[in-house]
Amino acid sequence: MQTQRSDKDQTGSAPLTATLLTIGDELSRGEIIDSNAAFLGSELTALGVYVRKRVGCNDRLEDIVAALDEAAQTGSLIVASGGLGPTSDDLTVDAVSAWLGVQPVQEPVHEERMRRRFIERNFAITPNNLRQVRIPSGATVLANRTGAAPGFAVQKGEVRAFFLPGVPKEMKPMFVEQAIPLVRQLLPPTVTVRRIYRTLGLGESHVDHRLADLLDVTEARRHAQQVAVTIHYRLAFPEVLVTLLARGEQADQVEAALAVLDEEVRRRLGHALYGTGEDELAAVVERALLERGQTLATAESCTGGMIGQTLTAVPGSSAYYLGGIVAYDNSVKRGVLGVSESTLTEHGAVSEACVRQMAESVRKLLGTTYGVAVSGIAGPGGGTQDKPVGTVWLAASSPERTLCRLIQWPGDREQVRKIATAAALNLVHKLMFPERLSDAALRL
Amino acid sequence: MQTQRSDKDQTGSAPLTATLLTIGDELSRGEIIDSNAAFLGSELTALGVYVRKRVGCNDRLEDIVAALDEAAQTGSLIVASGGLGPTSDDLTVDAVSAWLGVQPVQEPVHEERMRRRFIERNFAITPNNLRQVRIPSGATVLANRTGAAPGFAVQKGEVRAFFLPGVPKEMKPMFVEQAIPLVRQLLPPTVTVRRIYRTLGLGESHVDHRLADLLDVTEARRHAQQVAVTIHYRLAFPEVLVTLLARGEQADQVEAALAVLDEEVRRRLGHALYGTGEDELAAVVERALLERGQTLATAESCTGGMIGQTLTAVPGSSAYYLGGIVAYDNSVKRGVLGVSESTLTEHGAVSEACVRQMAESVRKLLGTTYGVAVSGIAGPGGGTQDKPVGTVWLAASSPERTLCRLIQWPGDREQVRKIATAAALNLVHKLMFPERLSDAALRL
Repeated sequence: MQTQRSDKDQTGSAPLTATLLTIGDELSRGEIIDSNAAFLGSELTALGVYVRKRVGCNDRLEDIVAALDEAAQTGSLIVASGGLGPTSDDLTVDAVSAWLGVQPVQEPVHEERMRRRFIERNFAITPNNLRQVRIPSGATVLANRTGAAPGFAVQKGEVRAFFLPGVPKEMKPMFVEQAIPLVRQLLPPTVTVRRIYRTLGLGESHVDHRLADLLDVTEARRHAQQVAVTIHYRLAFPEVLVTLLARGEQADQVEAALAVLDEEVRRRLGHALYGTGEDELAAVVERALLERGQTLATAESCTGGMIGQTLTAVPGSSAYYLGGIVAYDNSVKRGVLGVSESTLTEHGAVSEACVRQMAESVRKLLGTTYGVAVSGIAGPGGGTQDKPVGTVWLAASSPERTLCRLIQWPGDREQVRKIATAAALNLVHKLMFPERLSDAALRL
Repeated sequence: MQTQRSDKDQTGSAPLTATLLTIGDELSRGEIIDSNAAFLGSELTALGVYVRKRVGCNDRLEDIVAALDEAAQTGSLIVASGGLGPTSDDLTVDAVSAWLGVQPVQEPVHEERMRRRFIERNFAITPNNLRQVRIPSGATVLANRTGAAPGFAVQKGEVRAFFLPGVPKEMKPMFVEQAIPLVRQLLPPTVTVRRIYRTLGLGESHVDHRLADLLDVTEARRHAQQVAVTIHYRLAFPEVLVTLLARGEQADQVEAALAVLDEEVRRRLGHALYGTGEDELAAVVERALLERGQTLATAESCTGGMIGQTLTAVPGSSAYYLGGIVAYDNSVKRGVLGVSESTLTEHGAVSEACVRQMAESVRKLLGTTYGVAVSGIAGPGGGTQDKPVGTVWLAASSPERTLCRLIQWPGDREQVRKIATAAALNLVHKLMFPERLSDAALRL
């Protein structure tokens, strides 16, 4: 299944080809999902590096050395993570030393910091602790500001290799702050710019269809000589993200090409486009609420708290999100939210009348500008012929009006709840920007 | 960072050594996290297969062929996923055919099913659609009951290789139902049993410490000749999971060895052990509530709905979880939950007095057996000298008593909220089973 229309030969002839190496038995045994490779792949791609291969090997010295030898044949850049810890199973430093034919040495800055910490805490330092601050002799240190073990960079022939800790919280800042500047030095002086467009309400194939032949528009073609642009799609369920990656020799040329495409992308995506860059839907709703000094309350049935949790995942959300009612059982819909008995009897809990009352009631109860409500059938049980699993009623209420919306999107329990949460936030956003309601093609 | 004490040479001499191969540009570019490798690694490890290497390559025919050649040298089993879709970028069938020196052929059962579907929907079938139902000539078909593309198994010399779709929903049932029986035929007639122990409240290193030399206890040693046991740790934040993997020739020997170890593991983990097997904390609380016919309500501040969301992720939770109040803003704590002004002024929202009133109030308001409440400082802002980020007050209330608990566990916003959620469910569980309160070493 492919959603990319980038030219393979073009990316294949990227100025640098890289192999990712993730080290650790726990990854092979599937006890941890390898999220480091995805992070590194994404960052390197954004730099204009072609990631040709991902390799995962266990904590065995000879396997790590063999993987390095292999990787050195695939390309001129190796980015590795894992195996820098304190135990006898952590063999990356030894393996890299063996690969280079050098000895491991203590790295003085991290060693000194470790000794200071142990003294402060009145602990005795052990040889195992000191294992962690070793690097291969002659390697360039990559400082670890969130953990004990330093990373390092080495060179063997034409190949540059970076070794990072396996813990994502240590690996990520080290890579971004220290490895990327060194990788940039290996790249020709090109400018690479990434633009992310966030859409909701269109399936991946529909987004793809709307953007087909984007790169063929006349204005964009004008720039094709100077700027190489690729377009990538990513499903971040239920959202679809579109990434434009532009590379050229001069910043103004890259920006000019992207400006043409930006206008075209916005036009074609229409109101499915809810934001750009890294901000997710909750953050987009946050910004709109903060700018207007308005507040929001939630009334949740099938999502059981997921909307509140999503809103409060953003730091500072207390400025606009006051709280809500999880009305999972009908007794809470009646008793706390005042949904009428007749509504529940005549229309059921999954109905327009019910979510309308829930949204209006929670808005008044908590004294907020907006109220949003969800009631649906998340499954796997509870579906009927009229209201199958995946049926969700939503309402968003302001002092002026209440919008109601029915979605029916079959999926498993978690998907239905995620769709309902995204659709609820989207409906609030539409209530704040009514022009976003006009696209009939949107499913959310 | 290693938490495993299994004997490397022992697992290295497992009866089968496997390479995992995940195919797709989108994985190298980091647009998708490779969760298939973790699933396959976990399943194969449980079967007693040693996963030595994970390889990820792009949708390039020559790269896939090269990866297969390499993998065939690493071990006698290859399990691959991805590249079976309908587009011209999906090259796995072509690559495997080239590797084997055979031609791709249409697989009649899946082709017929596809043609039937297209006729039913009145769609014209395209050559691209038919690409998807090809397999290499002579391959064994693995039926795809959740999608269009068949998987397949092939043999080259001593090497058996399985090719599965990249979509997890199609890959997982195909692997479990069709590939595993074939893999079992390659294994000697040994019995492999996996036991999972779920702990909360002890750090990974403390769990490790408590179980150190577990395999050396006299009774366990008696079985060491017949049964190979390894112990693995996994941090599923904030829980620590312990897995015992036992392999032997006879089921009764394996069971006898595990029975000895089971008793010892339970004794050493004490009340940090909250459950076994696949059931997470929410499911354990669920079972206890269902057995007693009791109900629960939540009052959440810093978790913003996460406890309700966690409880309702379990299907059927409406039988015991009625709902709750997300009292994010103090106005909701006062107005809906009736927390007194003096409590908020004198003690603050993050205080024993506040969570006690919240838990007792939500229990009465919703008419449930139990009420649980959380109020804390999730950060990154809002911390003070007295109440730094990571300070969380919890309360669980029954008709007889209210338990309050303070935890202080520094971490980022998401970690603090996850800890608070786990600790809240754990406190309800302790309230239901007061003997679980006795372990002073537990931090949650």
